[in-house]
Amino acid sequence: MVQTIVWKDNQVVMIDQRKLPLQEKYVVCKGYRSVIRAIKGLVIRGAPAIGVAAAMGVAQGALKIRTTGMDHFKTRFDAICREMVAARPTAANLSWAVERMKQVADETGHRGVKGIRSRLIEEARKILDEDIAINRTIGRYGQGLLKDGSRVLTHCNAGALATGGYGTALGVVRAAAQAGKRIEIFADETRPFLQGARLTAWELKKSNIPVTVITDNSAGYFMQQGKVDAVIVGADRIAANGDVANKIGTYMVAVLARTHKIPFYVAAPLSTIDASIKSGQEIPIEQRDQKEVTHFQGKRTTPQGVSAQNPAFDVTPHRYVSAIITEKGILTPPLKAKIRRLFAS
Amino acid sequence: MVQTIVWKDNQVVMIDQRKLPLQEKYVVCKGYRSVIRAIKGLVIRGAPAIGVAAAMGVAQGALKIRTTGMDHFKTRFDAICREMVAARPTAANLSWAVERMKQVADETGHRGVKGIRSRLIEEARKILDEDIAINRTIGRYGQGLLKDGSRVLTHCNAGALATGGYGTALGVVRAAAQAGKRIEIFADETRPFLQGARLTAWELKKSNIPVTVITDNSAGYFMQQGKVDAVIVGADRIAANGDVANKIGTYMVAVLARTHKIPFYVAAPLSTIDASIKSGQEIPIEQRDQKEVTHFQGKRTTPQGVSAQNPAFDVTPHRYVSAIITEKGILTPPLKAKIRRLFAS
Repeated sequence: MVQTIVWKDNQVVMIDQRKLPLQEKYVVCKGYRSVIRAIKGLVIRGAPAIGVAAAMGVAQGALKIRTTGMDHFKTRFDAICREMVAARPTAANLSWAVERMKQVADETGHRGVKGIRSRLIEEARKILDEDIAINRTIGRYGQGLLKDGSRVLTHCNAGALATGGYGTALGVVRAAAQAGKRIEIFADETRPFLQGARLTAWELKKSNIPVTVITDNSAGYFMQQGKVDAVIVGADRIAANGDVANKIGTYMVAVLARTHKIPFYVAAPLSTIDASIKSGQEIPIEQRDQKEVTHFQGKRTTPQGVSAQNPAFDVTPHRYVSAIITEKGILTPPLKAKIRRLFAS
Repeated sequence: MVQTIVWKDNQVVMIDQRKLPLQEKYVVCKGYRSVIRAIKGLVIRGAPAIGVAAAMGVAQGALKIRTTGMDHFKTRFDAICREMVAARPTAANLSWAVERMKQVADETGHRGVKGIRSRLIEEARKILDEDIAINRTIGRYGQGLLKDGSRVLTHCNAGALATGGYGTALGVVRAAAQAGKRIEIFADETRPFLQGARLTAWELKKSNIPVTVITDNSAGYFMQQGKVDAVIVGADRIAANGDVANKIGTYMVAVLARTHKIPFYVAAPLSTIDASIKSGQEIPIEQRDQKEVTHFQGKRTTPQGVSAQNPAFDVTPHRYVSAIITEKGILTPPLKAKIRRLFAS
């Protein structure tokens, strides 16, 4: 299986998701600022993968703080963490991972700067390993929702490339396929970055799972034709009431699924749930550079002087969500009560 | 205003809509087969514009039939008409225009081959002129539906470029703007051919009507944000019950509009209404080359070996349509009864 991100010789190595599927190139980050650039520039994307990258990034930052004095170290480390959290606003896993790294630093203070550094590296690698294990568990729980012969529509990429490995939404698909079910995928191409056409198609092809790419605007057509049995997507942040922020267009798919009485599933680790916010209205939606819409591979497609808007995410209200598949099991409505119970335990 | 298509020195000259907005080039068709190629290859598109092109194409075909014998001429002319009608299956205006041309040929039989030829040229030019006049009338009727300050979402291009001139959906927008109303347009980029991002943006910019390009998958987001007051689209074929075939993605927009209680208007000339078919289920949906989805400007974007599906149109059931704006006035539900009355009179 593809390795989305690894820690190697104190460097963070990521497959370059801007270049897939035509080129399999790797970006080597030698400092936390180059990790931030990679996150902002979509070398790596997907909430869980961003979480892993952020953890590795701050570990790398900690390595390079030129001091042995604990106070100075902590001040600099906190500043690095703040910079990292600001890289992208929507994904919950980013601040979750950085928070976890900060806690490790706090708890290891007695071991001195050197001790903290090695614990941070250890923790970042642990976050990666845990993420893959969590996705396998999500897959095991979720695959029961898919029947032999299911035709599943997915939006964006919530696969191995969006996570430490295996994938959330595509993890469910993988687990169903591994359980011997024949599953076919419709991959929305997912403008403007084409995560579906490029990334989902690429990793499903590698895994020999049949995939057909469609334009985002034809999802409704295929549902109307009775060709979609279920929708599964990932999530960037889930509010306490079950509202789901995910890649722009997810809301459109959810509305269409509801209209056609097709179940709409969200697969996500608990680290994506932000129990501190009541509803999706509180989730910051990143507005990205309009050039991602007006240009294609550096070449202008729209007329000079015409502007575009490029919200990177949207919020699907919880009433459209049939279930959230987590590593602790499948949450069905009422989602608010189920999420509360999960975070209380 | 832009001239989409003209008859000039017995040639059919079209602005090349594959090249807009970056290049304003013209394709000169010297025979009916090159008109067919232009229609198939999307040099010209949009149901009313295709109708004009088809009429001019068969007139051009008639000019070049090497005979003065009426029987031979009629046999060849019928064959040309059949070839023309087969160029694209969905747009009603194509067969409507060819049928009208055939009738003219039939009615002019007594004038001899030469007489028929000049009448056909005259008729093709008349279809063009009428189309522009019809669009202005549609605009006058439709503009009453828009308020000062209305923010209108449109899908694909139903503008001057999709017609003889002025436009259907964009004709309504133009008429509202000309009546002094401030109208803002959200243009869905409309994958895969980007008619919205390229063509709608281009012609609205030329007309100084404010336009913002968005990805198709973000239409739901902007509606959810309360930023869309109305949707207006064109149509490729309308069935007797009011079901509307239009560019792929129109159905998605209609479902989203309904969910957000936003009116969904269709602007189309009577020549787009095919009263011979009961419902949208009978409308043939063109499936185009998957390369339009898997490649961008000749360059592959999806992984080798991954296939795509590329339906060019979808059908919006009549229950989603708030009104159809025609040159005979605005049809509101029940559409079936209104359409029946219109075609009976």
